[in-house]
Amino acid sequence: MKLQLSMDMVRTAAALDMVEKVHDVIDIVEVGTPMIVREGMAPVMAIREKYPQAVILADTKIVDGGEIEAADAFEAGADIVTVLGVAEDETIHGVVRAAKKFGGKIMVDLLCVPDIPERAAQLDGMGVDYICVHTAVDVQKTGRSPYHDLALLHPVLKRAKTALAGGVSLASIPLFRELEPEIVVVGGALTRQPDIRKAVVEMQAALK
Amino acid sequence: MKLQLSMDMVRTAAALDMVEKVHDVIDIVEVGTPMIVREGMAPVMAIREKYPQAVILADTKIVDGGEIEAADAFEAGADIVTVLGVAEDETIHGVVRAAKKFGGKIMVDLLCVPDIPERAAQLDGMGVDYICVHTAVDVQKTGRSPYHDLALLHPVLKRAKTALAGGVSLASIPLFRELEPEIVVVGGALTRQPDIRKAVVEMQAALK
Repeated sequence: MKLQLSMDMVRTAAALDMVEKVHDVIDIVEVGTPMIVREGMAPVMAIREKYPQAVILADTKIVDGGEIEAADAFEAGADIVTVLGVAEDETIHGVVRAAKKFGGKIMVDLLCVPDIPERAAQLDGMGVDYICVHTAVDVQKTGRSPYHDLALLHPVLKRAKTALAGGVSLASIPLFRELEPEIVVVGGALTRQPDIRKAVVEMQAALK
Repeated sequence: MKLQLSMDMVRTAAALDMVEKVHDVIDIVEVGTPMIVREGMAPVMAIREKYPQAVILADTKIVDGGEIEAADAFEAGADIVTVLGVAEDETIHGVVRAAKKFGGKIMVDLLCVPDIPERAAQLDGMGVDYICVHTAVDVQKTGRSPYHDLALLHPVLKRAKTALAGGVSLASIPLFRELEPEIVVVGGALTRQPDIRKAVVEMQAALK
């Protein structure tokens, strides 16, 4: 399992500080959607420039203009770009074309997808790299979690790998460990710790 | 009918040039999603600073973190912020709370919503200001258009006003004129004209 650090509520300078502390112990650094809405691709470019070896995911959550928007993020230095699973098939095909052109990868975020097995099977056939079950931060407080959804994914995927996002913490690892998602996305459970490097190292150990 | 100029594929400097040419003849200027993905809120802040009277829509297409992401856009100077209709109800409630706090407005984009009358009626009850039928640019080439969807909206809305987006041009006005959407969103049919001011004035006349 790879560990992805999601950075949401910080500006570029603070994100660079975080990456400096963890770049050699984290698998993927995510520039989250709220950062992109505030600063566009600036944080992606800044991290890419300072850490050429970092694997950067830009959480663009594309829902239209697939090829162009994905190309913009790859050009800025992202290795992985996200698209919403609710997007039209034409949009998914567009982001896959951009990924092929730039040698990048596509993660589909299943936020708000009503029938997860059906849509995941379709997306798998369209050539995306990762399919991510994701409980929205706005609904985590209602007690929903993404672990049941993850179990629905495995039987239907032939090619794409799985990812898991939405309230994941050290305490929740036993809830998905056996399902072995390829990528585990963690935000607040790492970024809110006083020693983020220690928290990342602990979580990496727990995921092994 | 109000005319909204959608600026998608330009950088801030070019957007400011466009706004300079049309600010006194356009009703709403839209900072489009691809601009936000590239530059974040920079174009919104730049237009707000130079044109205090402009009505600015930030096409954030929020799908999670509703209250925080909407607040960021309102703080940057947006008057109207967009949220996806496919988002969870909790996210819609969050953007409505932010709009009340900042005195802003919310437009819901119905991109990828499967049952338009059902979802529009729900959204209407949640206190959003505008509900926009929108044919994705990625599917306009398949011949789909938003005019039929607009006709589905009117019977179910009690409070929210309607908006229309997706390939609208001077030639397509007869297809929706009788339905009188509150806001008509136009991109390429204006931005690709050699004289954008003339194109806006012509379209405004045709919408009267």
